[in-house]
Amino acid sequence: MTRAAPTSYLAARAVSVKSSFRTRMLELAAGLDDIIALGRGDPDFETPPAIVAAGAEALAGGYTHYTAPPGLQELRQGIAFQLKLNNNVYYSDNQIIVTNGAQEALLISILALVDPGDEVVLQAPRFNAFDHMVNLAGGRVVDVATLEEDDYALRADAIRAALTERSKLLVIANPNNPTGGLTPRAELERIAGLAVEHDLMVISDEIYDKLIFGGAEHVSLAALDGMSDRTVTVNGFSKAYAMTGWRVGYLAAPAWMMEAAVEIKHTLSICTPPALQRGALAALESGEAAVASMLAEYERRLALVVRHLDGMGISYGRPGGGMYVYANISSTGLDAETFCLELLRRERVMVFPGTMFADPANRHIRITLLSPHEAIGEALTRMKGFVERVRVS
Amino acid sequence: MTRAAPTSYLAARAVSVKSSFRTRMLELAAGLDDIIALGRGDPDFETPPAIVAAGAEALAGGYTHYTAPPGLQELRQGIAFQLKLNNNVYYSDNQIIVTNGAQEALLISILALVDPGDEVVLQAPRFNAFDHMVNLAGGRVVDVATLEEDDYALRADAIRAALTERSKLLVIANPNNPTGGLTPRAELERIAGLAVEHDLMVISDEIYDKLIFGGAEHVSLAALDGMSDRTVTVNGFSKAYAMTGWRVGYLAAPAWMMEAAVEIKHTLSICTPPALQRGALAALESGEAAVASMLAEYERRLALVVRHLDGMGISYGRPGGGMYVYANISSTGLDAETFCLELLRRERVMVFPGTMFADPANRHIRITLLSPHEAIGEALTRMKGFVERVRVS
Repeated sequence: MTRAAPTSYLAARAVSVKSSFRTRMLELAAGLDDIIALGRGDPDFETPPAIVAAGAEALAGGYTHYTAPPGLQELRQGIAFQLKLNNNVYYSDNQIIVTNGAQEALLISILALVDPGDEVVLQAPRFNAFDHMVNLAGGRVVDVATLEEDDYALRADAIRAALTERSKLLVIANPNNPTGGLTPRAELERIAGLAVEHDLMVISDEIYDKLIFGGAEHVSLAALDGMSDRTVTVNGFSKAYAMTGWRVGYLAAPAWMMEAAVEIKHTLSICTPPALQRGALAALESGEAAVASMLAEYERRLALVVRHLDGMGISYGRPGGGMYVYANISSTGLDAETFCLELLRRERVMVFPGTMFADPANRHIRITLLSPHEAIGEALTRMKGFVERVRVS
Repeated sequence: MTRAAPTSYLAARAVSVKSSFRTRMLELAAGLDDIIALGRGDPDFETPPAIVAAGAEALAGGYTHYTAPPGLQELRQGIAFQLKLNNNVYYSDNQIIVTNGAQEALLISILALVDPGDEVVLQAPRFNAFDHMVNLAGGRVVDVATLEEDDYALRADAIRAALTERSKLLVIANPNNPTGGLTPRAELERIAGLAVEHDLMVISDEIYDKLIFGGAEHVSLAALDGMSDRTVTVNGFSKAYAMTGWRVGYLAAPAWMMEAAVEIKHTLSICTPPALQRGALAALESGEAAVASMLAEYERRLALVVRHLDGMGISYGRPGGGMYVYANISSTGLDAETFCLELLRRERVMVFPGTMFADPANRHIRITLLSPHEAIGEALTRMKGFVERVRVS
C-alpha cells in the first residue's frame, strides 16, 4: 500500500492546533542576548524556602509512590479548609481532585461536561488553552467580549446575548489572563442568575484570586445563590506561590461529578506527584506571608508600568488582579504582532500580542509584572524610545 | 427552568467510564488489617537514593519554573542516547516529549492519531486505561486475544484477522500488563510487515523493557524495517526505577508528529515538573545497578509464585517480563471477581481479577511480584488454603 503524506495520519483535532506565533517569538528570542522577558506568565520569584524544604523532605521520606487518583487526603483537606476560610465556598475533601496544575483541572472539567456540539461560552480575550481544551472535547467556542472601558470585567448582558439552546457551559476566569479583568460582586450575581435561569454549568478559574490589587474584593462564583451544585472551582499553587514548575492545582466540583472526574484524572496521568503535593500543603500552611510580600511587589511594578504607559499615551484596562497589564498599542500605527516582533528584535524586550489570547483585533499587548522593578523600568524606557521612533516614521 | 438529574450534565464520554470493581476492592481493603497487597502495580522498593538526591537538589536549585512543553533538553538528550544504546532505535532529542508518566505519553499519542470512528487494535488482556483513552478520542477498540498457551505473546495472524478498512492504529505493550507476555523478534517482524502492508500507525508501550526475565531478548518495534516513521515509542521511569510517584515518562515519535504532539502536551499539563525530570536524568545516569538488583529480586519472587501455583494446580502463562503473573483460577470453580473478593475478605490477600484488564472471561487473576519475598510466600500459602477449602466445598 502506498503511503500518504505523513501528516495526513494526524487526527483532525491535532491538525487544527497551532501556536506558531509563540514559536516564532521564542525562536527569535533564542538568537538574542540581554532580553528583558515580560512574556511568559512565570514569576521571577523563587518558590518560598519552606515549600521547597517540604517537597525535598517528602522525596526523601518515601512520597515516591502512586497516590489515589484524587490526591493526598491531607492536601485535599487543607484545600477544602482554605476554600471555606478564604473563598466562602463549601466543598468536602471528597469533592476535590489534586491535578497537574490548574491546566489539567480545567481539562478534566471540560472533558467531564462537554459533548460534541455543545456550546461553551468563553470571555475574550482569554488564555487560549481554553480553546484547545474545548476543541479536544468536540465543543464549540462562543465568544463574549470584555472591554477596555470596563477594565475588562465581564458584563452579564453580554453573556446573555451569547446564549443559545446549545449553551452548556460557561467558563469564567476571574481575575482574567491576559487582561487582569476583575468582575465585581453585583455583576457576578447577575451571571449566577443567568446560569440558574439557563441551566448552565460553570467553571470558575480563580488561579489569580490571591493576587488582587488595591485591596479589592474577590468573589468566588460558587459562593453565590444557586451555584454550589453547578460550579467547578479551579485553582492552583503556580501563580500566587511562585510554583509554576511544581504543576500542582486542583478542582473542587459538585459531588455528582466526582466519580467521572476521578476516572478522567486517572486516564490523564494516574495521580499528581505526591512529593509535590506535600510542597503544596506547605504552601497552604505557611505561604501566606510570602504571597503578601510578592503581591506588594507586583503592585509596585504595576504602578511603574501604568506610569510609563500613561507617559507614552498608550491606553489600557486597569487590572483588578493577576500579573499582567493589557495595553492598546493601536496609536502606534503598528499591529500588535509586528509591534512585539520589532520590539523584541530592536529593543530586546519580550511581550506577547493579544492574538495569542483569542483577541483577533491584533491591537493589544500583554505586559507581565514578572521581572524585577528595575528591569521593568528599563524595558518600558526602551519601549518608549521604540514607540516614539515608530510614531515619527 | 427546571433542573434535570445532576448526572445528566455529564458528557457521554464521562458517563461511560466506570471502574467500580477496583473501588469495591479498595473499599473492602480499607476495613481490613494486615493485608498483603499483590494488587496495584507499584514497586515495594523505594526510589534509589541518588535519584531522590537529584530531585531534592533540583527543587533547592530553582528547578521550580515552567520548562518548554517537551521537557528539559538534557533529559531529552539522555533519553535519545539511551534509546539508541539499549533499544537500537534512533530518535533525535527533538523527537522526544517528557510527560507525566507513560500514561500521559500514551494519551497524547492517541489524541494525536485517532479520529472519531477510527479503529484501534489492542491486545487482550491489557491495561484498561487504553480503552478509556481510545474512548476519549472517539475511536473504536478492536480486540486481539493473546493466549495462555503462547505465554500471552502476540501472534501476527491474530492481528491480521482483526484488521479492517477502518484500522488506523495498533497499540502494543511488550512486555504486556497484566500477562507479562513478551513477543519474540520473529513475530514482531511479522507484525511490522503487517503495519507497513496495511499502512498502520503503531504505539509501542515498552514501560517494562528493562524488566525482562531469564535474559530473554526485548526487541523495540521502532528498530524493525519500515517502522521508524510509523512508530511512537512510549516508556518511562515508574516501573524499572521504582519511581511511580514521580510521574515521569516520555514518548519518542516521528518528526512529523511533533508539532501536534507538543501542542497537545501543553494543553494537557503545560510541562512536566522540572525537578522530577532532573531525578529521571539521574536514573539514566546512575540507575542501572539498582534496576539490575530489583530485577534479580523480581525473578526470585517469580520463581516462588510459580512454584506455589504449580503446587496448587493453577495454570498460568510464564511471564517473559514485567512485574506480574497472570493465573487461571477457573479450576477452583469460582469466577475471578468472587475469587478476589473472597481471598481478600477471608485471607487478607489482595490480587486483581482479569476483568479489570479487559478480559471479560472472568477466569484469571493478576498477582504482582511487588511485596517482599517472605510476604509473597505467606500470601501464596494463604491462597493455597483458600483454594483447597473452596475446592472441597
